Amino acid sequence: MTDLFVRVDGRQPDALRPVRLQRRYTRYAEGSVLAAFGDTLVLCNASVEDGVPPFMRGQGRGWVTAEYAMLPRATQQRNAREAARGKQGGRTHEIQRLIGRSLRAIIDFDALGERTIRLDCDVLQADGGTRTAAITGAYVALADAIGGLQASGQIVTNPLRDSVAAVSVGLVAGRCLLDLNYAEDSSAEVDMNLVMTGSGHFIEIQGTAEGRPFDEVELDGLRRLGRAGCAALTRLQLQVLAEPA
Amino acid sequence: MTDLFVRVDGRQPDALRPVRLQRRYTRYAEGSVLAAFGDTLVLCNASVEDGVPPFMRGQGRGWVTAEYAMLPRATQQRNAREAARGKQGGRTHEIQRLIGRSLRAIIDFDALGERTIRLDCDVLQADGGTRTAAITGAYVALADAIGGLQASGQIVTNPLRDSVAAVSVGLVAGRCLLDLNYAEDSSAEVDMNLVMTGSGHFIEIQGTAEGRPFDEVELDGLRRLGRAGCAALTRLQLQVLAEPA
Amino acid sequence: MTDLFVRVDGRQPDALRPVRLQRRYTRYAEGSVLAAFGDTLVLCNASVEDGVPPFMRGQGRGWVTAEYAMLPRATQQRNAREAARGKQGGRTHEIQRLIGRSLRAIIDFDALGERTIRLDCDVLQADGGTRTAAITGAYVALADAIGGLQASGQIVTNPLRDSVAAVSVGLVAGRCLLDLNYAEDSSAEVDMNLVMTGSGHFIEIQGTAEGRPFDEVELDGLRRLGRAGCAALTRLQLQVLAEPA
Amino acid sequence: MTDLFVRVDGRQPDALRPVRLQRRYTRYAEGSVLAAFGDTLVLCNASVEDGVPPFMRGQGRGWVTAEYAMLPRATQQRNAREAARGKQGGRTHEIQRLIGRSLRAIIDFDALGERTIRLDCDVLQADGGTRTAAITGAYVALADAIGGLQASGQIVTNPLRDSVAAVSVGLVAGRCLLDLNYAEDSSAEVDMNLVMTGSGHFIEIQGTAEGRPFDEVELDGLRRLGRAGCAALTRLQLQVLAEPA
Amino acid sequence: MTDLFVRVDGRQPDALRPVRLQRRYTRYAEGSVLAAFGDTLVLCNASVEDGVPPFMRGQGRGWVTAEYAMLPRATQQRNAREAARGKQGGRTHEIQRLIGRSLRAIIDFDALGERTIRLDCDVLQADGGTRTAAITGAYVALADAIGGLQASGQIVTNPLRDSVAAVSVGLVAGRCLLDLNYAEDSSAEVDMNLVMTGSGHFIEIQGTAEGRPFDEVELDGLRRLGRAGCAALTRLQLQVLAEPA
Amino acid sequence: MTDLFVRVDGRQPDALRPVRLQRRYTRYAEGSVLAAFGDTLVLCNASVEDGVPPFMRGQGRGWVTAEYAMLPRATQQRNAREAARGKQGGRTHEIQRLIGRSLRAIIDFDALGERTIRLDCDVLQADGGTRTAAITGAYVALADAIGGLQASGQIVTNPLRDSVAAVSVGLVAGRCLLDLNYAEDSSAEVDMNLVMTGSGHFIEIQGTAEGRPFDEVELDGLRRLGRAGCAALTRLQLQVLAEPA
Repeated sequence: MTDLFVRVDGRQPDALRPVRLQRRYTRYAEGSVLAAFGDTLVLCNASVEDGVPPFMRGQGRGWVTAEYAMLPRATQQRNAREAARGKQGGRTHEIQRLIGRSLRAIIDFDALGERTIRLDCDVLQADGGTRTAAITGAYVALADAIGGLQASGQIVTNPLRDSVAAVSVGLVAGRCLLDLNYAEDSSAEVDMNLVMTGSGHFIEIQGTAEGRPFDEVELDGLRRLGRAGCAALTRLQLQVLAEPA
Repeated sequence: MTDLFVRVDGRQPDALRPVRLQRRYTRYAEGSVLAAFGDTLVLCNASVEDGVPPFMRGQGRGWVTAEYAMLPRATQQRNAREAARGKQGGRTHEIQRLIGRSLRAIIDFDALGERTIRLDCDVLQADGGTRTAAITGAYVALADAIGGLQASGQIVTNPLRDSVAAVSVGLVAGRCLLDLNYAEDSSAEVDMNLVMTGSGHFIEIQGTAEGRPFDEVELDGLRRLGRAGCAALTRLQLQVLAEPA
Repeated sequence: MTDLFVRVDGRQPDALRPVRLQRRYTRYAEGSVLAAFGDTLVLCNASVEDGVPPFMRGQGRGWVTAEYAMLPRATQQRNAREAARGKQGGRTHEIQRLIGRSLRAIIDFDALGERTIRLDCDVLQADGGTRTAAITGAYVALADAIGGLQASGQIVTNPLRDSVAAVSVGLVAGRCLLDLNYAEDSSAEVDMNLVMTGSGHFIEIQGTAEGRPFDEVELDGLRRLGRAGCAALTRLQLQVLAEPA
Repeated sequence: MTDLFVRVDGRQPDALRPVRLQRRYTRYAEGSVLAAFGDTLVLCNASVEDGVPPFMRGQGRGWVTAEYAMLPRATQQRNAREAARGKQGGRTHEIQRLIGRSLRAIIDFDALGERTIRLDCDVLQADGGTRTAAITGAYVALADAIGGLQASGQIVTNPLRDSVAAVSVGLVAGRCLLDLNYAEDSSAEVDMNLVMTGSGHFIEIQGTAEGRPFDEVELDGLRRLGRAGCAALTRLQLQVLAEPA
Repeated sequence: MTDLFVRVDGRQPDALRPVRLQRRYTRYAEGSVLAAFGDTLVLCNASVEDGVPPFMRGQGRGWVTAEYAMLPRATQQRNAREAARGKQGGRTHEIQRLIGRSLRAIIDFDALGERTIRLDCDVLQADGGTRTAAITGAYVALADAIGGLQASGQIVTNPLRDSVAAVSVGLVAGRCLLDLNYAEDSSAEVDMNLVMTGSGHFIEIQGTAEGRPFDEVELDGLRRLGRAGCAALTRLQLQVLAEPA
Repeated sequence: MTDLFVRVDGRQPDALRPVRLQRRYTRYAEGSVLAAFGDTLVLCNASVEDGVPPFMRGQGRGWVTAEYAMLPRATQQRNAREAARGKQGGRTHEIQRLIGRSLRAIIDFDALGERTIRLDCDVLQADGGTRTAAITGAYVALADAIGGLQASGQIVTNPLRDSVAAVSVGLVAGRCLLDLNYAEDSSAEVDMNLVMTGSGHFIEIQGTAEGRPFDEVELDGLRRLGRAGCAALTRLQLQVLAEPA
């Protein structure tokens, strides 16, 4: 049944924005995906490097990590460049840690061997949901990088144990909405990010009361919506990865 | 019914560690609370300052923010001092942002007036759950600072709309445990932090798959356990705040 | 007469790579141009801000400045992110100063009024000539930003006194080549960047002996080639700016 | 003969504040002492680490060093957190260098072997004399750390050649006072810190004219008072170290 | 023929300021030259170090690099100390990169062997032309350092393939001037720095339109003037190096 | 009676090195003195600035402060440039704080008015005693800067209440020596710096046991030697300041 409520961009409450995962966006990275969630554009580049961080050396196991940034004018108002300010902000730290954790959750580090895959997620344009677009796109870039390692015989066993996708959900004016854009996110009472495996399990759930605390019924409603969103994104990931490189 | 499972410190799965919230721990801060969750010790100092950050000036509304740090030897192995390294790490940024958001969720900024309350949460000893001890203790320090503003007639309406407490829960060897210590946290498959109001609503829920993705049943079990833990902490907060300053 | 020498990509010595200047590449910046010089891709965003730096305040005159960065994986080997390292490198400083100087040379600051236009030049992919692509694209972004100020009546007199374009030339194996790609640049004996106005005057000439010092005849040959390249880029700029926004 | 002059806290001019050296204040450090000089509280943690700084490697000799910090709200007015500012201030550098030098003066580095003992002195509450409390407490923490190395057989010869204690003295309204609190320190004409061995020799003497230059007679008076203060602190150190761990 | 135009200091348009290259200005550096171009004073110290940067290790080849700074009060108005600000400015980066490139252009790195010569160019007093005085002086310091390596038998083949000198030229009020002082530089329409070998070839040419774009005739006039200036500086370098150490 | 002991440079134990205080060493600073204590060369520049630091504003009182640095190759082994490392070291902080305190002790801030005099002490060559040469030279630069303020009528009352000079003394091989050079300083058992007024009072006394703790007799011997050294330096300061500017 069609919901009569109309979102600012005409979507149904349970509708994703148009999502595009464009592989091989740049030439040099071992995996390179432009993830578009509506007007949010995140370039996700995967780089394969020999070796692992000092605390892991000599165990024959690999590592996956991520860095995140927004171009200064990705947003409606320009933000100061972090490199010029000389440090990364707290939001940047929080998001890049989330991306790294999310990807590590589906990797078999023994199968990867003593190498590091680093995901650079750079936001070209920001209209809400940059971290979920980053995770969803970074998974495809990671899969491409791993595909390359397998194709060249550098690794034998596939280290990908599952896939991972992420979406935001929120309570806006008392209503559960999927995949919030910036305008919706700014007025949301509750903001939640779900990171889920392709097989339907949770990797991360982060719900935050922005305007007012929320109850269990609302939490369950948001969770249900996010689940469906992640499932749709998983299908899209499978579809783009099924195309030849 | 008593559970036959025995935790490393002999607790029941749904038992908090001994919790202590010692008010007026230091002399100068407007609120000063030593929060002890077992061997985790966090000193929470509230400082009242005139004025608010630039982006809020001139609106007559207040602000609450937090900073977090661990003493270098709060942990079993010494960690390098962030001031000496010249920057705060990603984990520090992530935690202090969480503490600030959690406290802001229960504050009426109009009632607070154009002043900032800054919560310094410094971990003297870390045995797991430092962020939840920090939030739980910081609320009491914040309440004391606000009490002082009211007592001196600087504010009239109480800006506290509710109380806030936080606790960790986790899946360890397939079992839901409340208030994990460091040993339990290190081997947890899933780690979750719940921040709740005294009236039983959620402010923040953060669940992370450390060892394996989790399903809805497990999520519900953890949530239930955390709810009860937050309720117990709320009772303790009320009790210590009921004592005369 | 066709030169029998064949460049790595089949170009004639005096041929530019395919050049594209895509306006309105992102939505929010007052001017946004993706400048492509072959495989080199630079996103040039112009932001209009009220006010000028402290040393210029109160004179009713404007300012134009630039920042430059490469995405970590714009290159064949990943470069560490400057924001993560906590400082911008010397090459970054050198290039962003060049871009700023080049654009300021054609601006009437009195006509601009007390506002700053900031050009963010972010390299998405680097195959040689990133600074010349940045200058050439930034001019178009700047023109779009100024066009917006005029359209909205914020400025009356056009502050653009001329246009600006830039190109690299170099001596490779004793031969003068226009618009070097990375492979050519790496083996060049002499590397030169020319920044010129649309009316054919020099704004900046920077020639550097990478492999061996050069003489006047070689300098003149490079200069002639670069002049023609800048003229061709100027025609392209005029053409894309002639299209409706 | 009792002096009729009354200090702000009722002490005699030559009286120390109540001093407490509480061993094993935290659990993990190899030595952990809370040093209280009246309302000044400094937590001194000793950490034993394998290896020495690069300039000392391969000589079989040890190293002792110190770091110092104040919690932001250790003071009456909050001080900005050094980790958040991104650098340690000049006062911090000056004090931690003093603590390190003072402890190194009584250590036999050959007996210690190629390991480093690092003293973290963190001020929980500051009411004057934080550096002297830090040195006095750090010695006890150091002794405990060394005791542990001896007990476990890691070192054979005791590297402690003597003990070390420190106290401040000052000229306030023309009168020599021992162990100044913050109020006295703020109005002192001359401020002096003495670091002495248990055997009564000087390790460091630092006298500074805050309000007016001083003469030899005043210097001698301050020195005499400080000597007695250090002797009393030495007795206390011996007493607490005589108790079983 | 004498030009009737009079410069602020009475020089002819094609005249250098009084230039002095004082060797052995300080005692410890392997080469130490005070370069004076009129009132511009730059202390150029060459330090020989074993080893090369990581990216060059193990190839048996040497490296030459430079650092540049101005004392805070080298200028008419004091500039903030870069060490106190915590970072080097863009101008500093740009200049020290130029000095390093200029010196590397005349060095045979195989003959130098796996060692680094570092040139510290510190401006004691700045009256225009600090970078050209730095390059001209640094060459002499470099030659002295290399002379020392040869004298002690550490290197056999002379790694100096040529000499290097640098001078500024500019268009002031439409007239080509050699070796601009600060007053001239501030009002120059075009500013150009030439770095040339002793044998009369170009190492670097950098011309910048400060006031208005320039044409080929002007560029040629400036180039001619700079060539003659570099030749005169080369003669002076040879002369001072001909004196016994 | 002549002492038969011979120092490395042939001096008597109570002899200063040749000391030179060369005024007007550079052109732009309001006071500029090259202080030479033997081979130690420190350039002391005084800059007069309007205004005072924020914590002093609006009181009509002045401020005096100092910064200190060593050129990288002031020493026998090159030290990394602090500006390149991105922070000032602990030793630098300690010394510049000492210089500032020493000069402030003889200034009448009311007479100075709401302006700051900043002393930049840059070590061109270091052979021990850089901080004492810096203080002794900085006083003369400060006096020149104040003389200029008086000459131009900007201040009426002389803010100099006294003069200040500093010298090092030390125990080397059990013998008290005045004004240690680097070789002596490196082997000193005790190192002491004395800062004294021209009228013979103490501003600062800092004695440090480098090799072994010291007793009262030794302290008195060092103090006596330092007193005489400061008196000799005071006479030299008066003499050079008596010469016309």
